[in-house]
Formats: sequence, structure tokens, C-alpha cells
Amino acid sequence: MKRNIQIEALNQIPLEKQRIELVERKCLGHPDSIADGIAESISQALCREYLKEFGAVLHHNTDQGEVVAGESCPKFGGGKMIRPIYVLIDGRATKQFNGVTIPTDTVAVEAAHEYLHKILPELNLQRDVMIDSRLGTGSTDLRDVFKPRQGKVPRSNDTSFGVGHAPFSDVETIIRNTSEYIDTKLRKKYPAIGQDIKIMGLRDGNTITLTVACAIVDRYCADIREYQEYMGLLTEEIGKVAKKSTKRKVVVNLNTADDIKSKSVFLTVTGTSAEMGDDGSVGRGNRCNGLITPNRPMSMEATSGKNPINHIGKIYNLLSTQIAQESIKKVDGIEEMYVRLLSQIGKPIDQPLVASVQVLPRKGVTLQEINGEIQAIVDDNLANVTSITEKVIRGELKTF
Amino acid sequence: MKRNIQIEALNQIPLEKQRIELVERKCLGHPDSIADGIAESISQALCREYLKEFGAVLHHNTDQGEVVAGESCPKFGGGKMIRPIYVLIDGRATKQFNGVTIPTDTVAVEAAHEYLHKILPELNLQRDVMIDSRLGTGSTDLRDVFKPRQGKVPRSNDTSFGVGHAPFSDVETIIRNTSEYIDTKLRKKYPAIGQDIKIMGLRDGNTITLTVACAIVDRYCADIREYQEYMGLLTEEIGKVAKKSTKRKVVVNLNTADDIKSKSVFLTVTGTSAEMGDDGSVGRGNRCNGLITPNRPMSMEATSGKNPINHIGKIYNLLSTQIAQESIKKVDGIEEMYVRLLSQIGKPIDQPLVASVQVLPRKGVTLQEINGEIQAIVDDNLANVTSITEKVIRGELKTF
Amino acid sequence: MKRNIQIEALNQIPLEKQRIELVERKCLGHPDSIADGIAESISQALCREYLKEFGAVLHHNTDQGEVVAGESCPKFGGGKMIRPIYVLIDGRATKQFNGVTIPTDTVAVEAAHEYLHKILPELNLQRDVMIDSRLGTGSTDLRDVFKPRQGKVPRSNDTSFGVGHAPFSDVETIIRNTSEYIDTKLRKKYPAIGQDIKIMGLRDGNTITLTVACAIVDRYCADIREYQEYMGLLTEEIGKVAKKSTKRKVVVNLNTADDIKSKSVFLTVTGTSAEMGDDGSVGRGNRCNGLITPNRPMSMEATSGKNPINHIGKIYNLLSTQIAQESIKKVDGIEEMYVRLLSQIGKPIDQPLVASVQVLPRKGVTLQEINGEIQAIVDDNLANVTSITEKVIRGELKTF
Amino acid sequence: MKRNIQIEALNQIPLEKQRIELVERKCLGHPDSIADGIAESISQALCREYLKEFGAVLHHNTDQGEVVAGESCPKFGGGKMIRPIYVLIDGRATKQFNGVTIPTDTVAVEAAHEYLHKILPELNLQRDVMIDSRLGTGSTDLRDVFKPRQGKVPRSNDTSFGVGHAPFSDVETIIRNTSEYIDTKLRKKYPAIGQDIKIMGLRDGNTITLTVACAIVDRYCADIREYQEYMGLLTEEIGKVAKKSTKRKVVVNLNTADDIKSKSVFLTVTGTSAEMGDDGSVGRGNRCNGLITPNRPMSMEATSGKNPINHIGKIYNLLSTQIAQESIKKVDGIEEMYVRLLSQIGKPIDQPLVASVQVLPRKGVTLQEINGEIQAIVDDNLANVTSITEKVIRGELKTF
Repeated sequence: MKRNIQIEALNQIPLEKQRIELVERKCLGHPDSIADGIAESISQALCREYLKEFGAVLHHNTDQGEVVAGESCPKFGGGKMIRPIYVLIDGRATKQFNGVTIPTDTVAVEAAHEYLHKILPELNLQRDVMIDSRLGTGSTDLRDVFKPRQGKVPRSNDTSFGVGHAPFSDVETIIRNTSEYIDTKLRKKYPAIGQDIKIMGLRDGNTITLTVACAIVDRYCADIREYQEYMGLLTEEIGKVAKKSTKRKVVVNLNTADDIKSKSVFLTVTGTSAEMGDDGSVGRGNRCNGLITPNRPMSMEATSGKNPINHIGKIYNLLSTQIAQESIKKVDGIEEMYVRLLSQIGKPIDQPLVASVQVLPRKGVTLQEINGEIQAIVDDNLANVTSITEKVIRGELKTF
Repeated sequence: MKRNIQIEALNQIPLEKQRIELVERKCLGHPDSIADGIAESISQALCREYLKEFGAVLHHNTDQGEVVAGESCPKFGGGKMIRPIYVLIDGRATKQFNGVTIPTDTVAVEAAHEYLHKILPELNLQRDVMIDSRLGTGSTDLRDVFKPRQGKVPRSNDTSFGVGHAPFSDVETIIRNTSEYIDTKLRKKYPAIGQDIKIMGLRDGNTITLTVACAIVDRYCADIREYQEYMGLLTEEIGKVAKKSTKRKVVVNLNTADDIKSKSVFLTVTGTSAEMGDDGSVGRGNRCNGLITPNRPMSMEATSGKNPINHIGKIYNLLSTQIAQESIKKVDGIEEMYVRLLSQIGKPIDQPLVASVQVLPRKGVTLQEINGEIQAIVDDNLANVTSITEKVIRGELKTF
Repeated sequence: MKRNIQIEALNQIPLEKQRIELVERKCLGHPDSIADGIAESISQALCREYLKEFGAVLHHNTDQGEVVAGESCPKFGGGKMIRPIYVLIDGRATKQFNGVTIPTDTVAVEAAHEYLHKILPELNLQRDVMIDSRLGTGSTDLRDVFKPRQGKVPRSNDTSFGVGHAPFSDVETIIRNTSEYIDTKLRKKYPAIGQDIKIMGLRDGNTITLTVACAIVDRYCADIREYQEYMGLLTEEIGKVAKKSTKRKVVVNLNTADDIKSKSVFLTVTGTSAEMGDDGSVGRGNRCNGLITPNRPMSMEATSGKNPINHIGKIYNLLSTQIAQESIKKVDGIEEMYVRLLSQIGKPIDQPLVASVQVLPRKGVTLQEINGEIQAIVDDNLANVTSITEKVIRGELKTF
Repeated sequence: MKRNIQIEALNQIPLEKQRIELVERKCLGHPDSIADGIAESISQALCREYLKEFGAVLHHNTDQGEVVAGESCPKFGGGKMIRPIYVLIDGRATKQFNGVTIPTDTVAVEAAHEYLHKILPELNLQRDVMIDSRLGTGSTDLRDVFKPRQGKVPRSNDTSFGVGHAPFSDVETIIRNTSEYIDTKLRKKYPAIGQDIKIMGLRDGNTITLTVACAIVDRYCADIREYQEYMGLLTEEIGKVAKKSTKRKVVVNLNTADDIKSKSVFLTVTGTSAEMGDDGSVGRGNRCNGLITPNRPMSMEATSGKNPINHIGKIYNLLSTQIAQESIKKVDGIEEMYVRLLSQIGKPIDQPLVASVQVLPRKGVTLQEINGEIQAIVDDNLANVTSITEKVIRGELKTF
């Protein structure tokens, strides 16, 4: 069946040439990202469990949950947690299949603990966190059992859509790179740098202002002087990373809410503000490209935790992003590209109700010239939609 | 101090002329909207309690919470709830002030019960729902105590932004009107029409397809035949409402996932899918204009439940929408308008870091001609930003 | 099959002639009694639901649960609840039978709400209490389905025992009567008298000291003077009730922990200390005769909430008490009597492993003279053990 | 001030000569004992934390909590947990003192985890258990701050009593020894022997029947044959231990509810029935001497988890047991002895309202002859009541 792929040219000022651009990222230790990460790690753990037991992935959706802040007394040199963070796990999963019981709750609780330990090593799992599972029971329609490498295309679970774009703008690139650099390089040297980082980028013409809030871990920071040194270090390092991706002027503001005099600063025991006052929810933070981009079309669907078999809110967000990025890479002449994939409940997911592609061709290029190539990429990606599922199961795709 | 208002012209194809447009609304009884409604009703109840006690609104944020689905056995003529819906309330609120204790938890629990009763009258509060409050304790900075009609401008609580646009497109208008019509008119005549309705609008060129999922309440629906009659009725009524707001072709699809033969249809005991299988979270559904609009810039910030004093994620979303709508109404010559307001933590909320306005002038109009008028409206709205707070407190603004 | 009934004579000083006797009762509004009452009301509601659906009672045990204290600000003339009381419901119940689903959780939640409303009318269910059900799933062995008036004797669910005695001593009688009098007469006139009352009776020779802690409801008590009047009134009324059942000297001490000067008194918003600081558990308070009697043999088994079909911890406690009371009434010559019934798991409940009866014959009476009559009563009661079940189902027996 | 010590002679048939005696013990892994153990370990952890911070123990009571059963699929050779056990922690503790915050919730959660790990090593804390703390806030009256070795006597927190007796009867001794032997010797050799053991002892004349229910851990038990071997082993070993403490005939019945044919046996994944179906509560199981003894006076007060400073329900139970045991050891001529200590709220705990001692002198001994010695022991123990507190803090006294 021919796919309904609609490609239209956008005639608009490219984002990089618009005056104002806003981009935000909530890094791994932000409470909303913690919630996303737990949700996704539970879904992946369930996938593994189902595969182990049945050679197939069964129905589940764990794109829910709430991280309720604890209470802490941070102190230079090492403070303490007062009340544990409470994590509610909900959503649902198939618990019985072919007469076999799958331990969905224990799998979920274990996945949540493991994920927390991985991203927040300062958190003491025996003491600083309480996990509660109210995971409901889902049922698996036989038609939606997913066996990898079998090529069968599941039916869409909902009438919903996914959205993606490419390429990343300067600000988007800078924020992604900064986050990556801190997580993979800088923190290894400086464990005082907490995991709860929020980066807000504003480009006003050719000036990019990065307003960064970064938690400092108290046991690795002796006093306010050392704290200030970390602020200086971060400002410098973030500036350096940023300059690699732009020729524009970059201004970095660190922890602007700090009041150094009164020592009211962003100091934490565990590296996240979830320890004290800040709750988090699945799907409230980054989109699946790791960013919040109010100058770009976005989907409200949480990507994290949804099942990767037939949940459009997950698959089409990941797929539309992949389509846009692949097109940009392979097709010469695209300035900007936006992809929206809309499903209809019950229809095979390789047959969206519409695949809407908006292209801003590069100056001097017409849509006709590149239309065919794009069409082919979209069609091909839809034909191979289950490869998204397989990548998710293997943990190869980030969802927030 | 002069405000940083940046107005730029957009040179792009107006949305109505783009090929594809997607718009979605989750109506009042959708689990995500239930979560939003509870969050906002708690914030409003806290505002009233604070005002009663102190003549001022204190710090709080209740834009959190989770609706965990129950379990039900719907049956034509009347089924039953098996396991209650579980509602987790979190967020935080000021509990002590001037030596007075404010009963934040009891206020929250009562507000949640009252709200549920109002929007889901079929829900038996003694039996079908369990509410649990884990509301944390917030502290109120004396500088952020808000007294209505005092003119003092609070300082921004965060570095964040709000987004708004105007005017509504055909599809947007249709969906808003449909929702309103069912809630205020149609259900009064036909109590079988549940509160959990999701409307997905797709405009493909000049054809608007509305895919509507609408819960039916079992006790008011005797059998599958009557169910089908309701489907017919809804299709017809929604079609009529839609036609009032557009000249385009309108197609209405009701409950497309139903399987009439096997009687597997969207039948509920209480009018919401939260009774069985569908969880909901604050901030995952509609933006503050009541819609999800992936063709428009959106903010990820939950508007519902945030404090209306200094939480940018609430105030700037509401204000930017108001600015756009007022401009469209008052200024002749605007085809489309997008407003983004960005705060910086600690700065007065009438002084955003930037107020970015993008205008698509109507054909034949230049930005210069209307720039001044728009500038004045933006400036004036920012100067009166606390009127947003007062409207929210009085319950005059919808947040989802 | 002949029953193993062992009757032996006790040669001991009758309790009334011992120097020291201790008796305690936690009245209806004491947190432990609230927990007991909720547990029992849930069991009864499940029995009714099972009977309605199947004409038979299925397996369940709801002798669990926890009442976690809230927080309140009592104030003469009317204070307020700050944090709701949290009630956890656990235990288990049969949820599926013959293809029918029984709404065990909603039944439990509703029963708990109704019971709370009945005994604590000042409690606002929408605001002052949060009920959470974690009722597990039990399974019903077909052999243990109980149909009333069918005469089939269930098998014991456990190796366990029940204990009972008769007659009540002076102190026991006084405490039971006082509790009854306050609940049925005095509070109707004086709603200021709360439900949370603890009566500790000490008989030292011929002096009975009743130490009573009685909550006062703040909205019905204007000031400390009125509070003191209530103390006077209660002291007098309790004294009067007590004198009706004894010729001994009676001393009544009311709220001895009060500090009138600092107005630190037992004032409550709702009538129970569960509103502030005192948690309650099932089975921690009164035995099934309504008393705690350390001078008497007692069973640790919670009677409340256990299923009345085959749970020995319930049935044998009720039955042994009934046997003792009936014997005292019908058999002339018993000074005191103690009954212990021990079951063995899997055996019919009318065939205890042993029915141990200890009799203190009245002076001048030998065991031989009355042995036969007692034997007959014990045997008869065991033969009709299911009448206990039927009485419990009809709500005719108190369990705490 | 002279203490009110009342010693009276009992003229009754000694327990060992009565026809029927019942004794029960719920060993460490029984759900009620798990609840007790968690409660006590939390109290001890709080004591240590308070001492570390203030050199003094502050007010708290953690004699609450609920162990809600999980769900499991035991299987010979190794099954799996399906749903984690849920543990609710409640009670209250002083959180603020002298401007210092004590992390009561994190201390409680950590203590519970550590205790569970110690007694149930097969339980995977990351997966098989969910702990939730709803510990309330208590306040410490300055007069009740307890500093060890300071000699100041706290005031009683309640009008309550404790009960103790000595010596242990044959059955009591056998049951205590059996439990000890399995926990300290037998399980080390045979890890298949679970922690959830209930021993019910019935002495009928000179025959002692021990009905033992003992969980077997599935991963250490290959099949039903091996299971039966363990039953044989346990029967034999328990018989041997029993015979060391009695000359009476001993019959041991193991897991009488098993149905070997259908393989419906007491097999567990973790060693406790809390993994599947059996909930537990604090204070519902053993008294502080480790036994349930319906032939002896008992207190309903939970000893575990109560603060060891001024909570009568804990201190007087431990002290009265100690008084009885010491008297039996030191005073020649006591057949049986029962001690009841009754406090009055607000009075120093070394001054009970009454210390009631009932003595059954050995044949040929009169009360007068031994009265003085007993009086001295009681008086001395009361004078040194705070040594109980200190022993509890050091973890030297068992409470269940």
C-alpha cells in the first residue's frame, strides 16, 4: 500500500536567521529527567524480561511515575539526607502470558534502583530513596506480540503523532555538547559537579546566553571559596565547549540564583534537587532529541517508558527525528526540515495516516529537485519502522 | 526600566495555508486533564486559604501529581468499579507563616475531592477513588508574598519561558468549540456521554478530519444498539459544531478502535478511562490554551498547579497567550503572531530577559506600520502582569 | 467423632479475691479500636458482597491495616485538621470466583469510609482522611466456601487457639458499662465528649481506681472553664455508672496528663487522638470481649477482620467466650471459668485438637457435680460452631 | 518515696500440673515478627543517632508499621518474586532538637533495610521489597531527654502496665530452645530451612505436641523428595532439642497443611510467607519473652519499637520479666511468679502506681519466709529501672 507522504516547502526565515531562539535541556539529574530515565529503564528491563521468557516483547507502558522530592541538609564537606526521595512507579504491563507469570513489579523496582544507582552514585539506595510500584496489569493482544527480526509490523495503539526536525541549530548543538561533555568528561575529574543541571540557551541575534543551573555535591566541596572556584571552572569549560560549535558570542551565567554572601547556593548532598523540594514527572522535560525547543514543532507525548512496539508517542517521535536527521545528512540542499507522523489507532505503524514533511530548501534549491530523495528516505524509514523498536530494545536510542 | 521587547517579522507561509496541520485536545475527563484539573484546583484552594488567613498568597507549587488508573467492569446498563483510582498529590506549599499553620494537606485533599466530584459526577468519592497527599513543605521568601491590588511585582522564581500565539486556526477553533459544546450543552441532555474525550484534528489541505474518542457511561446506555445511536448522535453533533467555524470539508470519526461485533467498545462506569488502565500526569496534556499544537511553538511547562505569583511557567504562558490574542484583536494587519517571554531567576516578572514577538503581517502590511501598537500592548501587558495572578486566583483563567 | 474436651478444676484464689486486678478498655475512637473497627467492617462488607453475588461467603482475611495519625490544631471553639489521617488497608480477599469479579478494593474502601463516618461524625471524609487499599488477592478453596444454614463445617485455616472466660469481674463489668453508657447515652447529650476514650481500671483490694483519658471535641467546648466542667461531669457520671456494678470504693481520675494552667489538655478537632500523633493497628487493643485483662488468659489473635468461616483466631475466640458465658449462666456452681480451644490446620472446626476448660467451682461444689453439664454445653457449642459465623455475618457479635 | 509493692500468695495448681498448656512462638521470619524486628531496629537506630548527635536519647515511638505481603512463584530449585513485599513504617520521632535536624526517616528506612538483610538474606533489597516511611514528627519534652549513666528517672508516658513471669515451663523452654537452635545452628548447615517458622506447643498432661510450620527456601531444595527429607530432618532435630528440656513425651508435627501428592507444600523463594499472602503487624506476635502464653498473664502492649526511655509498654514488660526471672534465680522457694507493673502517666517510672507480685510458693514454703527477699529484688529493680533503658539501647534485650 502506498504511504501517504506529504512534502511541502516552507517559505520562512530559517531559525538561525530569526532574531530570538530559545532552547532548554534538563540534564540527567534533573527531577523530570530522573523520572524519564526511570520510566525508560523500566520499559527496557521489561522488554529484556519478555524476550528472555517468550522470545517476544509484550504489551506494556511505563511512561508514568512521579519523583517526589525528599528533604536534605546539605553542608560544605558533607551533609545528610533527612527524608528519602519517594518514587512512584505506575503505568501497566502484561503480567500473565501463555500461563507464565512475569514479575513485572519486581523487574520495575529493580530497574529503577539500578538506574538511580547508575546516574546518581551519591544516592544511598538503602537510605535515600523509597520506591513504590503501583504498576497496573495490561493485557497483550496476540496480534501485538512483537518478535524481533520477524518483520511483522504492529498496529498503532493510538491516534497520535510524533515530531522531529533537523539540523540542530548552533544553540541546540552547544547545549547538547555541553551536557555530554560534563557527563562524560568533566564530572570524572570533578565529582563535585552534580548531575542536576539545567541549561537554558537564549540566542538574541548573534549573542548566545547560556544560563546554567548546576548542583554541586557537598562532600566534594569544602567551602564557599571552593564552590566559587567550581563556578569559575564550569563557566570557563562550558564557554570552551560552546565556542567549538559557534562563531557567535557566547555568554555563560552559572547559578544566577546563588547568594554567595549568605551562602545560599545550589549545594546538594546527592547531586540532584530531587533531594529537597523539586519533584519530577515523566514526559515533562526534554523531547526525544534531548531538548526543549519552543521555536520548533514539538510533540507533548512522553517518549520515555512507552512500549517500543506499537506506541506511536514513542516510535513516531524517534522515527521522525531519525528521518529528518538522515535527510539532512544524505540530501544536499535542505536548510531545515520538519517531520510529523500521524497514526490512526489500529492501523499498521508503517502506514501513518499522514507523514507530513516540511522542508525549507537551501537558497537556490527548489523542493522539486530534492523531493524524490526525501520521499525515498521517508518511505524507507517507514518501511523499516520496526528497526526503531529493535534499537530501543537494545538501548541504542536516547529518549530524553 | 525599559523592557527588552524584540519584535520581528516572520516571512513564512501562514499556518492555514500550509498543507498539513495537527491539533489535539484532551477534554476534562482524560486522565492527563484530570491530573491538570486537580493540580490547578489545589493551587486555587491554597490561594484562597492563604488570602483568608493572611490577606496574601504564599509560595506553593502543586503542578505535580499522578492519577493511577483503577480497575472496572463496565457493563451496558451499569457495571462496577473493582479497584479505586489512586491519586497522588505532590508538589509543595508553605505550611507555616507568621506563627500560623496552614492546613495545606487537608486543603489539597478536599480540593481534589471537590474537583473530581464536579467533573466526574458518576465517580463515588467514598468508593471509587483514593487520594494520597505527599505535599512537601515550601518556604515563603518574604519578598515573594503576594498581596492582590498592591501593585508590587514579584521576582521570577526560575529561568524559564512562556509561549503563546493567536489567532486560532480553523481546526483549533473547531476543537475548542466542540469540547465546550459537549461539556456545556450536549452532556446535559445525554448523560451517557462521558467526560473522557480526546479530539485529534488533522487538516490535510482543505479537509479536516476529527478523530474523536469519547467514553460512554454504562448506566445510561442499555445495549450495543443504543451505544451505536450515541456514536451516530455524536458524529452528527460534532459535525454541526465544526461546520459553524469552517468552510472546509469536515470528516468526523468516532471511537475508531471500537469493535462493535465483539462489543469491545469505549464503555465506562464513570466516564473516564482512568477507571481502567489509563494513568494521567500533570502537564502532559493540553497547553494553557486548551490545545496541543505541534505546528505552533509550545512550552513544555505545566501551567496547572504552579503558583500564580512568580512561577514563570504559569504566568508567562498565560500572559504570552493574552498578549497575542489582544494584539490580534486590537491591531489591524496581523495574520499570525507568536509570543515568547523568557525570565531570569530573581528578576521582577514585569522585566523579562526578553519578550520575543514574531509577527506574520497580513499581506500588504509591513511590520513598521504595526510595530508600535504591538510594542505598546506587550509593554502594557507586562506592566500589568500581576493582573494575570489576580485572574488566576479568582479562577477566571483556564490553564489546560 | 467424639470431641476432645478436657475439663479440669482450678484450685486457685478467685480473681475477685486476689489483691490486685488490672483491666483496660480502648473505646471506639482509640486509634487501635478504629483499626479494629475498620478491619471488621471490611470483613462484614465483603461477606455481604459475597453472599449477594454467590449466596456464599468466600475466603478473605482483612485483620490487617494501619491508622497513621494526621496532624491537627485543636482550639477551643473549633480548630482544624492540618494533615489527614492515613488509613492503610491490607489483608487479602478472593477477587475472582466462578468467572465473576468481586470489587474487593472498592468494597473495602467504602466500608472503611462508612465505618469512620459512623463512629467519628466530626471527621470530614473529604478532607480529614486518606484511605489507601493494598488488599491482596486470596484464593478460595472450593471446600471452604461457606453457605449459611447449610450446616457444612469448614476446615480450620490454621493451627491456632481462642480463649474466653466468664463471668466478668466487678472491674470488667464497670469498664464495659461505662464505655457503653458514654457511647449510647452521654455523648448524645454532650457532643463535646470525644470517641477516643481509654479506661484503665485498677482494683487494689476493695478500691477500684478508674484512670480515664477522654478526648474532648473542640468545637463543642468554648474554653478551659467549660473543659473543666466536662471533666467534672465525666468524673461524676462515670462514678455513678461504676457504683451500680460494685459495692467497692470507686475513684475516678480524668485526663491525668492535663496541665490546666498551660491549657495543655486532651482537646481534639475530631474526637480521636489519631488526628495528631497516635497511630493504631488491628489486633493491638481489646480482645473480643471488649477488654484487655492481664489477670486472665488471653489470645494474641486479632478477632476483628478475620474471616468468620474458618479463621480460628476469630471463631474460637468468640466461641470460647460464648461457651464460658453460657456455662456461667446455665450451670450453677461455677465461680470462674476459662476456655481454650485449639485447632489443627485442615481439621473441621467443630473438632478442635483440644477444648480445654478450667473451672473454679464455687465453694462447696465439686467439679464432678457440674462436669456433665459443662461438657454438654461445650459439645453443643462446638456442634453449632457455624452459628458463630452466621452471627458475625449478621453483625450481631462485637469483636473488640 | 516508698514504692507501692504488693506481694500476694497465689494458691493455685502450678502450670506444670495443670492438664492443658498452650504456648506459641512466631520465629524471626514470621510476618508479625518481621514487623516487630523492623520496629525495634528502627528504635535502636534512632537511639544511636540521637546519642551521636546529642549524647542523649530523644522521644520517639516506632512500635507501628505493617508488612504487606508480596507475591511470589516458588519453584523447586529456585523460583521468583513477582511483586515486592511492601513495608510501611509509621510511628513518630523527634526531628528537630536544639536547632539540629535528625534524619529520622532516612535512619528508619536504612535500619529497616539492614534488619531485613540480616534476617532474610535471600531477600534482594533492590527488587523484593519496597519500604515507605510515614514516620510522624514527635516532640521531645525537655524533662524527658534521657542521658545514659546520669541516673535521672524519666516520667511515665502513659497509664499502662507490663507483665512478666518466671520460670519458663517445659513447653516454653522447649519452644525457645528449638527456635534458637534452628536460627543459630541448623540453618547454617541447611540454608533450605527458611526463617518463617511458627511453633505451636500443646501439653496435654504429659504429652507435648509441637506443631511446627517451617518455610523451605526453594533454591536450596531440588525437588519434593528433598523437601520430604528436610521434613524428616527437622522432625528429628526438633525432637532431639525438645528431649533435652523435658522428660515428657514429645510429638513433633511438621507442616501439617502440606499436601505432598499435589506438591502443595510450604515452599518459598525468600524463606518467609510475607512473600506471598501473609501480612504482618507490630505487636501481634510474641510477647517480650519471645512467646505467646495464653495460660499466663500477658500484656497487649507491643514491646518492640517503643522508646526505651519512658514508654511503660516497653520498659515495664521487660522489667517485670527481669524481676520474675531474677527472683526465681535468687530466692529459694518460688514455684511460679507473676509480676505486673502499672504506671500512671506523668509519674517517675521508678514509682509505679502499683507493683503487683503474685507468688506461688513451693510446697512447704510460706510467703512470709520469702516475702522480704522478693520485696528487695522488686525495689532494687525499680530503683535501677534505667538500666533497662541502657540495655535496650545497647541492643542487649530481645523484645519479641
